[in-house]
Amino acid sequence: MSIGNAENAPHIGVLPRGLLGTIADVHGVTVGHCTLDEGPVQTGVTVIRPHRGDPFRDKVPAAVSVINGFGKSIGLVQVEELGVLETPIALTNTFGVAALAQAQIRAAIKVNPRIGREWSTVNPLVFECNDGYLNDIQALAVGEPHYNAACAAASADVAGGSVGAGRGMSCFDLKGGIGNASRVADISGRSYSVGALVLANFGRLPMLTIDGVPLGRVLAERVSQAAATAGKPEQGSIIMIVATDAPLDSRQLKRLSLRAAAGLARTGSVYGHGSGDIALAFSTAYTVPHDADIVALPPLLAHARLDPLFRACSDSVEQAIVDALWSATSVTGRDGHRRLSLHDTAADLAQLLKQSP
Amino acid sequence: MSIGNAENAPHIGVLPRGLLGTIADVHGVTVGHCTLDEGPVQTGVTVIRPHRGDPFRDKVPAAVSVINGFGKSIGLVQVEELGVLETPIALTNTFGVAALAQAQIRAAIKVNPRIGREWSTVNPLVFECNDGYLNDIQALAVGEPHYNAACAAASADVAGGSVGAGRGMSCFDLKGGIGNASRVADISGRSYSVGALVLANFGRLPMLTIDGVPLGRVLAERVSQAAATAGKPEQGSIIMIVATDAPLDSRQLKRLSLRAAAGLARTGSVYGHGSGDIALAFSTAYTVPHDADIVALPPLLAHARLDPLFRACSDSVEQAIVDALWSATSVTGRDGHRRLSLHDTAADLAQLLKQSP
Amino acid sequence: MSIGNAENAPHIGVLPRGLLGTIADVHGVTVGHCTLDEGPVQTGVTVIRPHRGDPFRDKVPAAVSVINGFGKSIGLVQVEELGVLETPIALTNTFGVAALAQAQIRAAIKVNPRIGREWSTVNPLVFECNDGYLNDIQALAVGEPHYNAACAAASADVAGGSVGAGRGMSCFDLKGGIGNASRVADISGRSYSVGALVLANFGRLPMLTIDGVPLGRVLAERVSQAAATAGKPEQGSIIMIVATDAPLDSRQLKRLSLRAAAGLARTGSVYGHGSGDIALAFSTAYTVPHDADIVALPPLLAHARLDPLFRACSDSVEQAIVDALWSATSVTGRDGHRRLSLHDTAADLAQLLKQSP
Amino acid sequence: MSIGNAENAPHIGVLPRGLLGTIADVHGVTVGHCTLDEGPVQTGVTVIRPHRGDPFRDKVPAAVSVINGFGKSIGLVQVEELGVLETPIALTNTFGVAALAQAQIRAAIKVNPRIGREWSTVNPLVFECNDGYLNDIQALAVGEPHYNAACAAASADVAGGSVGAGRGMSCFDLKGGIGNASRVADISGRSYSVGALVLANFGRLPMLTIDGVPLGRVLAERVSQAAATAGKPEQGSIIMIVATDAPLDSRQLKRLSLRAAAGLARTGSVYGHGSGDIALAFSTAYTVPHDADIVALPPLLAHARLDPLFRACSDSVEQAIVDALWSATSVTGRDGHRRLSLHDTAADLAQLLKQSP
Repeated sequence: MSIGNAENAPHIGVLPRGLLGTIADVHGVTVGHCTLDEGPVQTGVTVIRPHRGDPFRDKVPAAVSVINGFGKSIGLVQVEELGVLETPIALTNTFGVAALAQAQIRAAIKVNPRIGREWSTVNPLVFECNDGYLNDIQALAVGEPHYNAACAAASADVAGGSVGAGRGMSCFDLKGGIGNASRVADISGRSYSVGALVLANFGRLPMLTIDGVPLGRVLAERVSQAAATAGKPEQGSIIMIVATDAPLDSRQLKRLSLRAAAGLARTGSVYGHGSGDIALAFSTAYTVPHDADIVALPPLLAHARLDPLFRACSDSVEQAIVDALWSATSVTGRDGHRRLSLHDTAADLAQLLKQSP
Repeated sequence: MSIGNAENAPHIGVLPRGLLGTIADVHGVTVGHCTLDEGPVQTGVTVIRPHRGDPFRDKVPAAVSVINGFGKSIGLVQVEELGVLETPIALTNTFGVAALAQAQIRAAIKVNPRIGREWSTVNPLVFECNDGYLNDIQALAVGEPHYNAACAAASADVAGGSVGAGRGMSCFDLKGGIGNASRVADISGRSYSVGALVLANFGRLPMLTIDGVPLGRVLAERVSQAAATAGKPEQGSIIMIVATDAPLDSRQLKRLSLRAAAGLARTGSVYGHGSGDIALAFSTAYTVPHDADIVALPPLLAHARLDPLFRACSDSVEQAIVDALWSATSVTGRDGHRRLSLHDTAADLAQLLKQSP
Repeated sequence: MSIGNAENAPHIGVLPRGLLGTIADVHGVTVGHCTLDEGPVQTGVTVIRPHRGDPFRDKVPAAVSVINGFGKSIGLVQVEELGVLETPIALTNTFGVAALAQAQIRAAIKVNPRIGREWSTVNPLVFECNDGYLNDIQALAVGEPHYNAACAAASADVAGGSVGAGRGMSCFDLKGGIGNASRVADISGRSYSVGALVLANFGRLPMLTIDGVPLGRVLAERVSQAAATAGKPEQGSIIMIVATDAPLDSRQLKRLSLRAAAGLARTGSVYGHGSGDIALAFSTAYTVPHDADIVALPPLLAHARLDPLFRACSDSVEQAIVDALWSATSVTGRDGHRRLSLHDTAADLAQLLKQSP
Repeated sequence: MSIGNAENAPHIGVLPRGLLGTIADVHGVTVGHCTLDEGPVQTGVTVIRPHRGDPFRDKVPAAVSVINGFGKSIGLVQVEELGVLETPIALTNTFGVAALAQAQIRAAIKVNPRIGREWSTVNPLVFECNDGYLNDIQALAVGEPHYNAACAAASADVAGGSVGAGRGMSCFDLKGGIGNASRVADISGRSYSVGALVLANFGRLPMLTIDGVPLGRVLAERVSQAAATAGKPEQGSIIMIVATDAPLDSRQLKRLSLRAAAGLARTGSVYGHGSGDIALAFSTAYTVPHDADIVALPPLLAHARLDPLFRACSDSVEQAIVDALWSATSVTGRDGHRRLSLHDTAADLAQLLKQSP
């Protein structure tokens, strides 16, 4: 398991990365994984905590773009209406959403016992991809202990690859999983951080494009597995979580989140029918109190100044997908299904990227 | 517990009702309840089956209008993208969503063991209201057995009031719950049925309006409980399920579902901040096969002919809310909390409606 | 022509109205009409200025809810993306939109000659209803001079009825047009104004409901014209402009604007297929500068405190529709078409409202 | 001026192009241009006719994706509600929208004199980009005659580059304009055509990416003009019109239209703040009659079979942007402003593309 950005991966675009090269470059953001690696059960939970406090009391401005809605995530309706999130963000496999939503409710009640009394409730927020190729998803193996373990493990030292929710994921017929990246954008003389964490589980091998290089076409000729599945529709998904310390409101965060689609496209995706492609963006620049008469926001960046952040979002997401492929290790799961990592597929990867196109 | 429309309730509008006066007037639609009435646990599950077959294999054209998105329902993202539902529709309390989603997944796998293998998944569809005033919602009492029991109980003989998911619901500071209604609309010489089932859990007493009569203002003067809560914000919700046998596609069903907002408004609601007001409409005129190259639709009604259905939807929803109030029985729940039914609140109800305004 | 709220109209709801009973109760908002009354040409222009300055330089937070999108308005795409308006709001007939958009562009360039140079542009904002029953809409009679005249006439002394854009409009088979109303809402010890101006051009007579009273059913029995058209689909429209001095951002204004749908429904509408039902809400509490690095907002009302504003919006819109009917005078237009005012239709109006239902 | 795809442009992706390599590969689609080349007036009109009949009587299934809504197009509200278009699609400069909308109304009335009588109206549909750098946009030079000329000129022989609405457009600080492309996609043994026509007016030079090659970074070092503007925000726009002969309903066309965003991203765009990035997709497989009780659709492709069309859309749009750059000729406009074509900027273009990266 690698920490942070995998070495030797190409750098996407011209903006510099942050110190860590992960979503944790946005100060205060932490990530925890709980990995289930038990024979046919190859799955897990990843939790992103937007700040170190209680997000129910100090809600986080956020917005979601549903790029392709073939997905079973929970919590998006209320984020769309109110523009805030009030739990940590949880990622897992498709059939684990319910268990994690339940876990989020219990965790929120534990800290705020008045939830469910006096009319207040809490909005669980769980995203998913389908890891059913490697993972025995019918086992419904993910539960409350795994959510709690992931929360407890949250730190600024963010692992990627075949860990947490990424354990069983496939991407371009290769081993996918968790990827991270960050960028620094300058606006009117100030620097802002944008970080992305993706759960990458989409794509057919022939589509794969790395920094503009159609690597997948080359690899597809080598790999019989891919050839066999190339005709099949894309039925994975990608969840793209984007954090920034720039002072944006939820309307601006919605605009920001959509730019994840640009980074995704550049890796070869056309947002396939069966792929739940969803991006959430949040800001750590301020919080919204649970109960208050008024909400005082800091001065916001003007819409007309957002282009560097849009670029940072797009490039971070593209880089994070590259990072997922670079960081992933090969995994064998249910019924002998096996996904090779990119590195195990192409020992001559560095050379391939140089030669192309 | 009453069956079908409560007697003596005023008839909303000028369109005639169907034979049963319930959502089951749309042929093939069945409803089942499972009620939990155990001291502080006053809650339950209601399931609406759009047809008697397997909705995963024979999907049902559907669409959702989120009128106010303060809600925790699951499944709406995919319905929005694809315009079909593929499970029975489940209703329950806010913290029961996850358990029912899990139950829907298990039920679907049982019938279609390839779900979760070979990449296919199933989209759970669960709606909720917050019954935390009467029900010990923190007990997370609702589970898979209750979902299965409600499914097994589904029939065209549809009960209303303080049953199923409606057991612990409040409406206008009175006892709310499940309400039913139907209307028949004529278009170009043919008759179509529209049926509504609501889970009514919204409103403050002073707002209550019955067929244009501001009954709530009169009652509010009598009822100390309401007076005490009148200043509090509305934090309930209403789920409005609308069925029709008219041949509509999901775009048309989306338009239809929005007309639920008109019926809701006429009962006094302004879609309060804390109220998750969501309408789903589906058609039984055809189904969409799970796996097929092409989809052959029957001839659809033209958009320009939909006004009678819009009226039928609006009137059905308004009538169904009235029915929920008329059908509900008083319930005592957690911590001695008690909601009186409309009838128990106003013995002189018939007279009040005659006198007003 | 009456000024402000017509006398003797019933007061909708329990919130008090403002001093003027018009949208101008929101301080700084002014309205101007230009009426064309020339035989078959019965149409006009109404302009709402959100403040006395230049809205291009000092943009106004705003949002739109498209309740039924059978409409040809211009400018909504950019309002949706950016959450501000940057011209006065113009209302006219369906085929006058283009001419007014042109006029808005010219007017904006006149004040800001750099528009169209150095890449900047301006977003025209024109709403419309179809007055083709009374007005010879094919004459395309509305033009730039009428827009400029309406702008020049803008004042806080707001006329209603058969004036400006309302000149040729029909409503419930009666004479419709411009209606006004306002409400005062108290939140956490402070008072906020909400004002509505509607261009009312929708509905069939049998639907008409005044303060819950189904007046239209009674009148329809008397009026042969209505009987003849009762079977025809609704093909009018209503534009609902809602102003408030409450400090809201565009996300909150979007929520506010949707509550216009509740007031509209209570007058009998179900948002008919052919009716372009669109609501725009804006706030005068602050402006957004055209060119700035950051935008400093005042403290905003919390979402959870918005219910009184939601009620004020809904009641203002319902009252404004009533006002349009009460204020309108009978008009004869093209081909001898004639619309009677409500008062000319029902001399015994006061008595009818008392007797019903 | 070149006809169809410029020679020697790289072929994007692996799907084959159609015979013509233009949007006219979708049978029945024709395009006409009217170019204004008069000193400081460098602008024009482009019209796309979806079929050879009257689109008001035989409406065309369509849908729009607003990727970034900084735009002043007209007609989108009704397309969103009803899922059809009923006029030819017109493209022009930002301040020409109103004049063309007026022209479309007049043209529709001429053919259907009952429009504007008996309540029916017509929905103009005009898209725009801002050509104000080269064109004296304040001159409001575009008018009804130019619309009519473009309609009259419509044929299957489609020109690209600095013609029609593309006359004054800039793209990546180079000369932009009209681009065309097409792809053929096989689904279940049948072939379907997808064609794209873009009005390309977006981007800063350093972003420019051709088939994955970051050509813009290389060129930016050479071009002082670009260097000077590189820091400025993107304030162009792109309109992407996608046609297909595949039998899709408007919901499916909406999904298809969004895939234009993927092709756009691959050329280097991140959907900049000031760029109105809008895609419209329509199908020629059937029409919807203006007045009918029912609408009989042909068998539709299943959602799960759409991936080849998604790819075809994305690749066509990317190719069409490339085509716009390849086809454009250098233009001098107002105030001596000049945009060099890509070919005039890089005589060694072929070599550059081979060497990179």
